[in-house]
Order: sequence, then C-alpha cells, then structure tokens
Amino acid sequence: MERTNGRKADEKRSVKITRHFTKYAEGSVLIEDGETQVLCTASVITGVPSWLKGRGEGWVTAEYGLLPRATGTRTDREAAKGKQTGRTQEIQRLIGRSLRAVIDRKALGENTIKIDCDVLQADGGTRCASITGAYVALADAVNWMISKGLIEKSPLKDSVSAISVGMSEGQPVLDLDYVEDSSSDTDMNVVMTGSGAFVEIQGTAEGDPFTRDDLNRLLDLAEKGNKELAEAQNEALKA
Amino acid sequence: MERTNGRKADEKRSVKITRHFTKYAEGSVLIEDGETQVLCTASVITGVPSWLKGRGEGWVTAEYGLLPRATGTRTDREAAKGKQTGRTQEIQRLIGRSLRAVIDRKALGENTIKIDCDVLQADGGTRCASITGAYVALADAVNWMISKGLIEKSPLKDSVSAISVGMSEGQPVLDLDYVEDSSSDTDMNVVMTGSGAFVEIQGTAEGDPFTRDDLNRLLDLAEKGNKELAEAQNEALKA
Amino acid sequence: MERTNGRKADEKRSVKITRHFTKYAEGSVLIEDGETQVLCTASVITGVPSWLKGRGEGWVTAEYGLLPRATGTRTDREAAKGKQTGRTQEIQRLIGRSLRAVIDRKALGENTIKIDCDVLQADGGTRCASITGAYVALADAVNWMISKGLIEKSPLKDSVSAISVGMSEGQPVLDLDYVEDSSSDTDMNVVMTGSGAFVEIQGTAEGDPFTRDDLNRLLDLAEKGNKELAEAQNEALKA
Amino acid sequence: MERTNGRKADEKRSVKITRHFTKYAEGSVLIEDGETQVLCTASVITGVPSWLKGRGEGWVTAEYGLLPRATGTRTDREAAKGKQTGRTQEIQRLIGRSLRAVIDRKALGENTIKIDCDVLQADGGTRCASITGAYVALADAVNWMISKGLIEKSPLKDSVSAISVGMSEGQPVLDLDYVEDSSSDTDMNVVMTGSGAFVEIQGTAEGDPFTRDDLNRLLDLAEKGNKELAEAQNEALKA
Amino acid sequence: MERTNGRKADEKRSVKITRHFTKYAEGSVLIEDGETQVLCTASVITGVPSWLKGRGEGWVTAEYGLLPRATGTRTDREAAKGKQTGRTQEIQRLIGRSLRAVIDRKALGENTIKIDCDVLQADGGTRCASITGAYVALADAVNWMISKGLIEKSPLKDSVSAISVGMSEGQPVLDLDYVEDSSSDTDMNVVMTGSGAFVEIQGTAEGDPFTRDDLNRLLDLAEKGNKELAEAQNEALKA
Amino acid sequence: MERTNGRKADEKRSVKITRHFTKYAEGSVLIEDGETQVLCTASVITGVPSWLKGRGEGWVTAEYGLLPRATGTRTDREAAKGKQTGRTQEIQRLIGRSLRAVIDRKALGENTIKIDCDVLQADGGTRCASITGAYVALADAVNWMISKGLIEKSPLKDSVSAISVGMSEGQPVLDLDYVEDSSSDTDMNVVMTGSGAFVEIQGTAEGDPFTRDDLNRLLDLAEKGNKELAEAQNEALKA
Repeated sequence: MERTNGRKADEKRSVKITRHFTKYAEGSVLIEDGETQVLCTASVITGVPSWLKGRGEGWVTAEYGLLPRATGTRTDREAAKGKQTGRTQEIQRLIGRSLRAVIDRKALGENTIKIDCDVLQADGGTRCASITGAYVALADAVNWMISKGLIEKSPLKDSVSAISVGMSEGQPVLDLDYVEDSSSDTDMNVVMTGSGAFVEIQGTAEGDPFTRDDLNRLLDLAEKGNKELAEAQNEALKA
Repeated sequence: MERTNGRKADEKRSVKITRHFTKYAEGSVLIEDGETQVLCTASVITGVPSWLKGRGEGWVTAEYGLLPRATGTRTDREAAKGKQTGRTQEIQRLIGRSLRAVIDRKALGENTIKIDCDVLQADGGTRCASITGAYVALADAVNWMISKGLIEKSPLKDSVSAISVGMSEGQPVLDLDYVEDSSSDTDMNVVMTGSGAFVEIQGTAEGDPFTRDDLNRLLDLAEKGNKELAEAQNEALKA
Repeated sequence: MERTNGRKADEKRSVKITRHFTKYAEGSVLIEDGETQVLCTASVITGVPSWLKGRGEGWVTAEYGLLPRATGTRTDREAAKGKQTGRTQEIQRLIGRSLRAVIDRKALGENTIKIDCDVLQADGGTRCASITGAYVALADAVNWMISKGLIEKSPLKDSVSAISVGMSEGQPVLDLDYVEDSSSDTDMNVVMTGSGAFVEIQGTAEGDPFTRDDLNRLLDLAEKGNKELAEAQNEALKA
Repeated sequence: MERTNGRKADEKRSVKITRHFTKYAEGSVLIEDGETQVLCTASVITGVPSWLKGRGEGWVTAEYGLLPRATGTRTDREAAKGKQTGRTQEIQRLIGRSLRAVIDRKALGENTIKIDCDVLQADGGTRCASITGAYVALADAVNWMISKGLIEKSPLKDSVSAISVGMSEGQPVLDLDYVEDSSSDTDMNVVMTGSGAFVEIQGTAEGDPFTRDDLNRLLDLAEKGNKELAEAQNEALKA
Repeated sequence: MERTNGRKADEKRSVKITRHFTKYAEGSVLIEDGETQVLCTASVITGVPSWLKGRGEGWVTAEYGLLPRATGTRTDREAAKGKQTGRTQEIQRLIGRSLRAVIDRKALGENTIKIDCDVLQADGGTRCASITGAYVALADAVNWMISKGLIEKSPLKDSVSAISVGMSEGQPVLDLDYVEDSSSDTDMNVVMTGSGAFVEIQGTAEGDPFTRDDLNRLLDLAEKGNKELAEAQNEALKA
Repeated sequence: MERTNGRKADEKRSVKITRHFTKYAEGSVLIEDGETQVLCTASVITGVPSWLKGRGEGWVTAEYGLLPRATGTRTDREAAKGKQTGRTQEIQRLIGRSLRAVIDRKALGENTIKIDCDVLQADGGTRCASITGAYVALADAVNWMISKGLIEKSPLKDSVSAISVGMSEGQPVLDLDYVEDSSSDTDMNVVMTGSGAFVEIQGTAEGDPFTRDDLNRLLDLAEKGNKELAEAQNEALKA
C-alpha cells in the first residue's frame, strides 16, 4: 500500500542537518526532516539552577517554540498571549529529559546547557526533529566547552534521536508528515539512544485503541528510523 | 526478590473506589490506591467549547490539582503562584485524552463533561489513579444524564483504567509507590481499555535507557494490573 | 419560627472534627459543619518570610481554596484561571489574622506554620469552618514541633473559632447553611477566642441595613455558637 | 487622655469635600480627611456586566488604587507588578458593597456606575474616606443621569459614609491617623447610612482581642463620626 | 489661521508648576499644561537594581499611569487588567531615558531615584508634561539628598523638558491639546535640554507622511516651546 | 575616518531579500542586513478586530520576537517569562504604524494582515530590517489576495523602509552594526516611504545630547540609505 506522500511504510523523509546555522550560539543546528524545519541552538551558561547548587552536577534543559507562521494557519504567539500552552510545555520537558538521558551530569561540572528549539516550518514530527537536532547542537556545545578548557572530556555517554510512528489507515508507517498525522489513529514518538536502547516512548490512540501487536510493529519501524537518524547525526558531526 | 513495601513484583496495591463521596457533582468518586487518594468529580455542563459548536458533538475534558499538603513536603499552591506547572498540564491533558478514547462524542450530543481530579494524598501513581477514578465518575455522570433525559443511551464504548509500571533495582514491578518511583530507572504509565487494548503508553528512562525486552516485561505487568482495575471499576459501578 | 432546615434560631449544625485525616502534614484536620467539609492542613516550615528575618519571631499564614465541584454548579479552578479571586484572598487573609491573634510569635521562634484550608464541600460557612478547623491543625503542628524539640513550650495563648450569624426573614439565626445564607439580609462572621473575647467581626448588610439592636442579638448568638465550637475543639484535641 | 495628634478621643479630623475636581467624570470628588486625600470619580456606563443582562437592574461597582508615593515609603505600582494585592481587592469590594446598599438597582435601569477611588495621600483611613467621597461622586453621577434623561428619578435610597474607630493605648478613639493606626490594638471600620443604620462592620484585633464592652464603646464613637460625615456630605451636595 | 482653541500656531498653553503637592515624596510636583494635569513624585531609594550593583553608579527610572477617569471615557485600570499597555511602557521608558540624559550617574552614587508620573487629567501632551514636571521633582529630590548629606553636590548636568508639535490641517502647531492631537497628521514629541540640545525626537505620521521641510518647521516650534518650559522650570525651582 | 567594520560613514551593509522563505505564509521574506537576519511573514486573516468592525476598513498589525540565541548571550524567551518586554512592544507598535502609513485601509476591505517579524540573528538594526522586510512580505500578501479575488486592486500607496543612523565617535554614520550601536552617542531610526517622505523619526541621545546640525547630517544619511533600500525592495519584488 502506498502512502499519500509516495513513501513506503518504513521509509522516513530525507533529513538534512546544517551545523553553524547562526553565529552566536555555542551550538547552532538547522534540522530539516522533509519540510519540517527546526533551529536548535545550544547555549553554555556558567552555573546551575539554584535547586542544584553545590552538588557538583550540571544541568541540561530545553525550551521549544513555534514561529507563528510555521503552521498552515497562523498560531498565536505565546509571548503575546502571556503563557506557553500545555503542548509546548510537554514538548520542552520531553526534549530536556531525552538529552539528560545521554549526558553524565557529574562530568559536565556545575554548568548549564540550554537548548532552544524553534520551529520555522512545521510539517509534522517537530518534537522528534527537535530532539534529533538538539543532540547535534549539544555535541557542538560540548566540544566548544572542551576547546575552551571548561571541561576536560566529553560528558556525552551516547547519542539520542527521536522519530514518530503511527497507524495510518490501519497500517503502521514511519515518520508521519502533517497530513498523515492529522488522520492517523495512533501516534507514537520514540526516543532512542545511538546504541539502540529506549529513552522514551509516548504512544497515544487518537482514534481506535491499539493492540500489543500493533505496538510491536510500530516499535520495529521506530528502531529502523532511529538507526538511520543516528547515522545522519554521526555524519553531520564528522563533517 | 521482595519489594521494600513487601509486595510481590506483579502485585498492585489494594484499590478502593467510593462513589457519591461528595454530594453536588453528577459523579463523585474517591479512589484510594494504597495510600494515594484522589477525589474525581464529574460535572455535566450544557453546551460545548466555542471551537466545537455546531458539529453535534460533545466534549470531555479534565483538570488536575494537588492539594498543597498531599505531599511529604508542602507543594506550592498553583492558584497562588498564578499558573499551573508543566507537570500538571501534562497530566490533565493525559486524563482528558484517555477518557475521550472511550466515549462516542456524537452520542453525547452538544454537552460537556468536565472531570476534576484533586489529589488529597500522593503516594505515587496519582495520574493513573486519576484516570481510573475519573472513568467511574464519568460513568455516573452519564447515568445521571440518561436519568434526566438529556441523552437516551450511554455514549461509553468501553471502560478505561491506568497503572504505572517501572524498573526498580533492575526488576520490573507493578504499581510503584512514591519511594519506589523516586528510585526507579524507568517509569511507565499504561492506559488501557476494559477490553484490553492500549489507549496510551508513556514510558521514560529516568536513569539507564531500557531495552525492548524490559519493555515487554513491563507491558505484561501493566496488562495484569489494568485487568484487575477494570474489575474493580465494574464492581464499584454495580454496587 | 422554624428555619427551613428545621433548626432552632440559636441552634448550630453538628460539627465533627477528624484529626490525622491525611498522613503527611504536621497537622491534618477534616472539619465537617453539617454538610460543609473543609480539609485543614498545617505545614511546619523552617525560617520566616524575608521581610521578617532576624527579628526572632515566627509567622503563621493561611491559604484557602475551593475544589471546583465543592459547589452546586462548578466553580472555575483558580489555578487554571491564573489568579485567585478577591473572595479567596479576603478569606485567606482573615484565617491568617485569626490564627495569629492566639499565637505568641516570639515563642514560635523563626519558624513558619502555613495552614491550607481546602473546601471539599461547601454548604455555607466555609470561612468559619476553616478557622475552627485550622486552629486544631495548628495545635497539632505545635505539638509536633514540641515533640521534635523545635520549640520548648506551646506558643498558643488561647484557642480560636468562628461562626456565622445572620438576619434571615427578619430573625437572627446561628450558623447559616447555603440556602439561608443566599437569602439573608445580613451576614456576619464572628471570630472569638476560647476565653470569649472578639478577634474579628465582619458584618455585611446584603439587603436592608441593620440596627444596633439587630447587631446585639446577632452577637449573642455568635457568643453561644463559638462557645460550643471551643468545646468541640477541646474534645477533639483531647481524643 | 490626649491623643498624640492633639485630638480628643471622640474627635474626628476635619473633612473637606471638593466636587468637580476633574472635568471629564460624571462625578468627581476630592475628599480630604485630615492629610488623607482620595480622588473619587464616578463613570456612567450604558449597560451592565454580562451576568446581569436582561434583568432590568443596574450595577454599581468600585476600584481602588494607591498612587505609589501616597505613602511614607514608596509602594510598588500594582499595574507594574501585574496584580492587585489582596488588600486592594478587599477594599474595592467593600466600597462597592457599601454603595450598592443605598441604591435601588431596579430604579437605575440597565446602567453601570463605576467608582474609582485613587488615593493621592494616605494618612490612615483611606478606605473610609473612599466610601464617604464615593457616595458624593455617585450622587453627582445620578444627578447627571437625571439631567440627561437617562433615568427619571434618583435611585438613591439613603446616603452612606464610613469611619474608622480603634483601641489606642487602651482607649477607644475616633478616626485614627496613620501613626495611631499602626500602634492600635483594634481597628474597626464602620459603614453607616445617613439615617443611622449599619451597612458593614469590620473589626479586627491586631493585638489583644477585644471585649463586648470595648465593641460597644467603639460603636458609639462610630455613630457619632458617621453622623458628622453625613452632614458634611449633605452640605457638599447642597453647595 | 486660528486654531480651534484660539491659540496662535506657535503659542503653547499656560503651564503651572506646583512643588510640594503631596507631603511624603522627596520631590512632589503637580504640573498643569492647560487642562492636562500630571502628578510627578520622586522617591529616593538607597541602592541600585541588581544588574548595576558594584559599579559606583546610580539609576533614575520612571513609571507612568493614567487614572481611569483622566480621560473623556473611562480607561481600564491597568492594575485590574494585570498588565501595562504598550503605550504605557513606551512612555515610561521615554521619561526615564530623558531624565538620565541630564544626570551624572557617577555623581549620584549607588542610589536610585524613581519618578512616578500619574495623570489626573489628560487633555493631550501627557508624556511631555510628565517629562517637564518630572525634572522639577527630580531636582527637588536631588536637593533633598544634598540636604541629608547623601551626596555632596548636584549630579544634574542640565535641565530637561518636552513639548509636542504637529501638523494640524496642514499647518505646524505647538503643544497640541486632545482635540488637535486626534485630528493631526503628524505628531512629534521633542525632548530638549535647557541649553537647547536634543535628547529625543519622536515624530510619527499618523496620516500623510511629512517632508523634511515640515520637519524643520516643527522643530523650530519645538525649540521655542522648550525654551519657554525651561524658563518655567527655573522659576518654579527658584520659588 | 574609517569605521571599525571597514565601511565608509555613508555606506550601509549589503542587504539580501529572499521571498518565499517558508511555505505556508501568504508572504514570507528573509531579510539579511549584513549579519542581521529577520524572518518576516504576512498572514491574511478574514475580518478585523472587534473595535473596527462594521466600518468597511481593514487592519495591518505586527508582532516582533527575538529567538533566544539571536544574540551574543542568550536572551530570555518572552513566552517562558509570560510577558513581552517594553522594548518588544515598542518595536512591534512601530512596525505596525509604519506599514499602516502606506496602505489604504478602505481598499483593503474588512481584512487583517498580521506581520510577524522574528529575528534569527541580531547584529544591530533589527527593527529597521523588520520594517524593510515586512513591507515586501506585505506586498506578497496583497498580491496573493488579488490572485484569490479577495480584493480587486492593491491597497498599497507607496513602499516603506527603515534604516538606523547614529553619531559614532563624533561622526554621523549609516546603518550601525551591534558594536557601533553599543558605543554610539545618538541612535536614530528613520522610516521613509519609497517616494522620500518621512513616516517616523525616533532619535535618542544615549550619551551626549545632539544638536540641530547633527540631526540634519543624520537625516541626510538616512535619506540616502532608505533610497537604496527602496530599490532593493523593488528589485526583490520584480524577481
């Protein structure tokens, strides 16, 4: 069965990772997953939040935003409304947890790395693209810290990436675009390390509930997709 | 291996569901899962939010709160701080989605049922207990609507419940209490229908990432736990 | 003349005070005044607000909330709206002042006791029940402090309770329930010490203004009611 | 015994009421009570709040503010902090209730009169001066409405004024200034109609609780003070 | 051509500056420009904002507000709405910058002077009147600091004033009142020092864009007006 | 005298205007002025704000934001802080006014065009680049409306652009970058139409006040710069 976008069920979109996209941040990555575009910047900040002081550990956290016209119809600007939506908070908490899963916070010392993921164009999968791009920005920031002598060796224990999978017209598919996502029954975001372990699984039945068998088929796709993303991250970081 | 609370790995806490706990709400349920206590009330409201008007469909949504001293040390009151935390928003969105998964919104007509889950005492698993209790309050509210002639037959397609599972000291365990939850490596909340399908899976590696095999063992436990909760819901509703 | 609820003009509702209602708080009291139910918890916090530091005095303060479905029709959740109403602020300020009137703040040392009064069910008189229950929670917290060696002897100088009185159909009545309160001309909340002195009087003519003679008759009732409440507090604390 | 300000125990400060203080408002009154200065403006607005629509009744409400340097040390501007304090809300609710007590809302028709009380200089008793001045502004706005043919006859049933009384160094005194207020044991605000009935009594023991006998002596003073204020209001309105 | 208000094109309104208008502030000035009335108070505060600490410099800043009924129809109270409008922020930033332009912040030491400009009556030109009056309040506060020995000599380098000019019916006019301002094509606020240099120019074409020639004619008027204001400030300070 | 960036005093940075930068917006322009990069999107929205309804006129408005790492050190995200700074509000009001100056709002019909200017990289002059880029996005949105038959002919009366000028080390210079801007004495933003008239002038003496002669030299530079920008806009729109 062919997908509306012409892709095969287990075929993700082409991903493009551009490092040094803007000039000021210690890590600055534009990730394009098909038509989805997210700018991920990493900022190195001396010190840690007050609740963490004195423990000799660092902190990695993330914020997420959507430019108002990243979407088909304009989305209200959160700064103008005066608060972040529940969806935004959910996503930025997920990005932060995913990155902290692959960092040795003791080895980071009492430093904070803050990742900003700002979506320039949203065609589905923005939270997954954010995690995948954020890892590369984080790696660049870590290398910057080593080059400046702030830390001696990398606190990164593994890489991390994320991909969405879902049941679309009864069939499990990989890396849904906006059109597929809007009509899918089940939507699942799977965050994995480069070595193939799971960091986070968030699966939701938007329509019919899903079976254990559906779940297994979705996870097979997610493993394939994340493996490909880990390779893309590696290549980008070698360039 | 014995758990610190004396339970077996696949043994959930005893659950107690008290209907008609307060007198004004159309559904009012106190659910106790071990020492965790959540008051779930269902309010029937004529009409739907403005973005849904005119489609002949109803709406089910939820709000979640923690009484300040539901916890070991006092948690700041969100009303006093002037905003809900990201955690609160994440939980109330999860409760709402879970309930909507088992309701035929067309059959509800243009009515809203609002579920409030307020935690009186928090000993781990409050979001899962909220979902399990909220379903019973929802069922009572639906029956109230039928008795008042607002709808003719039940829009409920199935029951829904939720339970947490996690890796504690390398072992998968069912229904973690606060102490176990604080030290677990992986924490997973699994929402299922009474007929055994999955509505939502949210699994997070707080420490080490987890393998596909860990995941399967956790899901086995979750299926067992949710089956027992579905029975407890049925019995409470028959009483 | 008989009241709609069958009580005599000078007859208050039966009051029930349950200590240790929840397990974490240093004082935790459920007070039931007829169908009104308020959970009062007392939290002991080391230190005082910054404006009070270094004076060797403690602080006692209160917060008040209404569960959304404590009322006949659902009341919006203040945490979701992002602010507390004027009514809420007025009540929590009143509770705090009332408790501070019976505590020797020097003897408390630089400690804070924060009282949370959360209304589970509201059938009139919630602010008065909050004060009466809060005193018992405060006494338990003080005893906990003594048992932990944080203070040597009790800083409590007296007990404090509150009751509402009002003009209902031209007749002064004690302890109005919601139905009476809604139709009363004058509503008065009277806070008194166990030894019979006045801490606070708040009387409002909702309809016709009241005379000095009305006022005196209302205060007679309030003295009677508070005396009975003080006895109920004593008995609860002895149990 | 002489008071620190040289006044006798039952002697209030001289009051000066200036009508038409600013030019745009339908009622605009500067009230000076000793050194306390409050600008009270009344705005006539067609229509009523949405919750009151269609009942053929009007609405009277008030807002209160303190210019930042009305006080000895600068008070933060509420507009800059983004919220009104509990004290402000308490006061503006009191002013609104007091004015509504003397107006026939049916006779006002579906119109709103909004009173703004802004304190230019605060030397104690600002809430009482606000009520006393607001009544005069309200009367001017009502007369403006009659002159424009918006209503046929005055909906005012009586006048209303307020004065503070308190126990200062064991002695009941009338109309406390800031210095007396800061050191008084009991502070009571008494709102009365021109015909001598009570609209609101708010008495608080800041230090020692007060007796029924103290209360009676304070009310005697308040009756005297309010009688004098009612006369001052009448004279101002005749001018 | 005569203006609607009977003034000549280059004729500003009469200005009246009353010092010591209220008693608590270190500088307190009521400025009346025609029917526009602004109360400007200066508060001396020990210390500086945290971002300025340790540099041996002081800070001067301003806040601006409009009493709700300063205007023809009531303007919502910003404190009640919970935020300041963009217009308010723009104005208070302008006032602050204008005052800082004439103060030697080193000579002020680590002290803050906070200026509050509150508009009692608004008939056009409130931001300009605020700046002109604020300077006089600032000068009084500086003199108070010298008299208290907080600083040795005045940190004021010059005086500062502001006036509006605009194109009204194709003609450049000085010091527009509200009616002229509402119908003008171009509105320009010009802030100048007493010695005739420019501190700030803000010119906006509300209707047709303006030419360089228009601009020059407007600036000629502004220079004339500011010169007269500087004289009025000097005289007020001598009094 | 040479500038630190090697440019001549009257030489602006190279400007690059990329249309159709993102795919959803009716107008989407990336403007690069040297290293400053702003994404300007125009959204066409049916209808007008409520205060404008029924007058047969349209509305053009703007919002402005800075990605957190557009700057040398991270700027807090306004959405996370819950409010827009005064600077942001000032800038977005300026952009909106500038665009409205060149549009015939009657000819736009009851439609709104909302412009979002989001700064990806900030090297000085972001508000001016926003205006210049926003005009091109607006023109594209207007053409889209014509192509869809929403309006018959263009409501644009002229083009509009903006450039900064300033006194840097005593010399007037054109189009200051961040380093120059930080150390300049006077900073002026000049908004002009394509036909050479002035829409807005905002000049501020950050250090020493400026003379009328300085002003004239600055305006000469601004006229030159805006002329070049108008040509760049024309060429971009022809491409």
